[in-house]
Amino acid sequence: MEETKTQVIPRPTLQRLPGYLTVLRTMGPARSEQVACTYLAEKLKLDPVQVRKDLQYTGLAGRPRTGYDTEELIHAIEATLGWDNFSDAFLVGAGNMGAALLGHEQLRSYGVNIVAAFDSDPEKIGTTIHGKKVLALSKLGNLAARMHIHVGIVTVPAAVAQAVTDLLVESGVKAIWNFAPTHLNVPDEVILESADLSRSLAVLTGRLTAVRKHE
Amino acid sequence: MEETKTQVIPRPTLQRLPGYLTVLRTMGPARSEQVACTYLAEKLKLDPVQVRKDLQYTGLAGRPRTGYDTEELIHAIEATLGWDNFSDAFLVGAGNMGAALLGHEQLRSYGVNIVAAFDSDPEKIGTTIHGKKVLALSKLGNLAARMHIHVGIVTVPAAVAQAVTDLLVESGVKAIWNFAPTHLNVPDEVILESADLSRSLAVLTGRLTAVRKHE
Repeated sequence: MEETKTQVIPRPTLQRLPGYLTVLRTMGPARSEQVACTYLAEKLKLDPVQVRKDLQYTGLAGRPRTGYDTEELIHAIEATLGWDNFSDAFLVGAGNMGAALLGHEQLRSYGVNIVAAFDSDPEKIGTTIHGKKVLALSKLGNLAARMHIHVGIVTVPAAVAQAVTDLLVESGVKAIWNFAPTHLNVPDEVILESADLSRSLAVLTGRLTAVRKHE
Repeated sequence: MEETKTQVIPRPTLQRLPGYLTVLRTMGPARSEQVACTYLAEKLKLDPVQVRKDLQYTGLAGRPRTGYDTEELIHAIEATLGWDNFSDAFLVGAGNMGAALLGHEQLRSYGVNIVAAFDSDPEKIGTTIHGKKVLALSKLGNLAARMHIHVGIVTVPAAVAQAVTDLLVESGVKAIWNFAPTHLNVPDEVILESADLSRSLAVLTGRLTAVRKHE
């Protein structure tokens, strides 16, 4: 039990790790060999204690005074995020958002490599978007299982998102990245991460509304 | 002080409100006049106590046994999120992600209306993407101030995101929706909401990596 517990990295920590990586990678050619928690904290306006706790999850121990070896820390964060490698992914729904993700040049450096897109629209099937083939949705199940695809990206309208998710899960997908503005049900062992923009906009417009009421 | 405090809705609450709205709106034609916290909780796999607390922030009080008036609750959530109206927004960076947002039909129902896009690429300036004009970045400051634009959407590469943000803030923008994979600095009074996909993927790939190590 103890061992399992240490594996679970809190969500806010995972969300902060890319920020550390960006700061470390962009320290420039004059990058020092050592980096302190206080430096990262200052750059990202975070509490140094928080930074130290987050970095502990990478399994790397900082040394008092000198801090972390910069290269070691970069590798440790990448390994923790799985960004030293990538998982092949299928994307379902070749609409505007789907096309943007197919053309997103950095997804690979964030651990995900989209190998094919799927759609049920006959006008889209057979086309190529940003170099990626759009295949018929009916081919998804067979291909996902055969190619051992572990990540499914859902960019279909809300009304069909659950059906697409069920199909992906049945085909062996272990993680769903959802862009549809709806709640999805997945089995407990399947990872579900929502990138639903309505949730993000809810925070922005909700705060803006509160400010206006206050003015 | 007390009054100010009640205005601040926690981020997780704001993020859950769209989920309630979706459930309420899709209850179908047989939608009952009353809805209970337990119903919403069950649909979204949440704790009913959590749902009740969240809904308190809308200023609406549920009645014991009967719960909330469904229509009233929908309106109260929309008003809390500012989704009963919309704010005009400028988008900067007409790349893949920018184009996807320009073509996103639901942003208006999420309280944001993109009125124009800006880019510094001469090949993009003057074009129209999903019915929205792409204007020269040099025109942004003047136009944002004159049109009282309050929301800025940043879909430029990380390297120029801070400069674009500074320009938007100088031009009177009160809220920044950032898609660039980088940390941005804004004055305290400016709302900054990150929709940076690398943070979302960090959670997905980080958890997938943890599962694999465990297998």
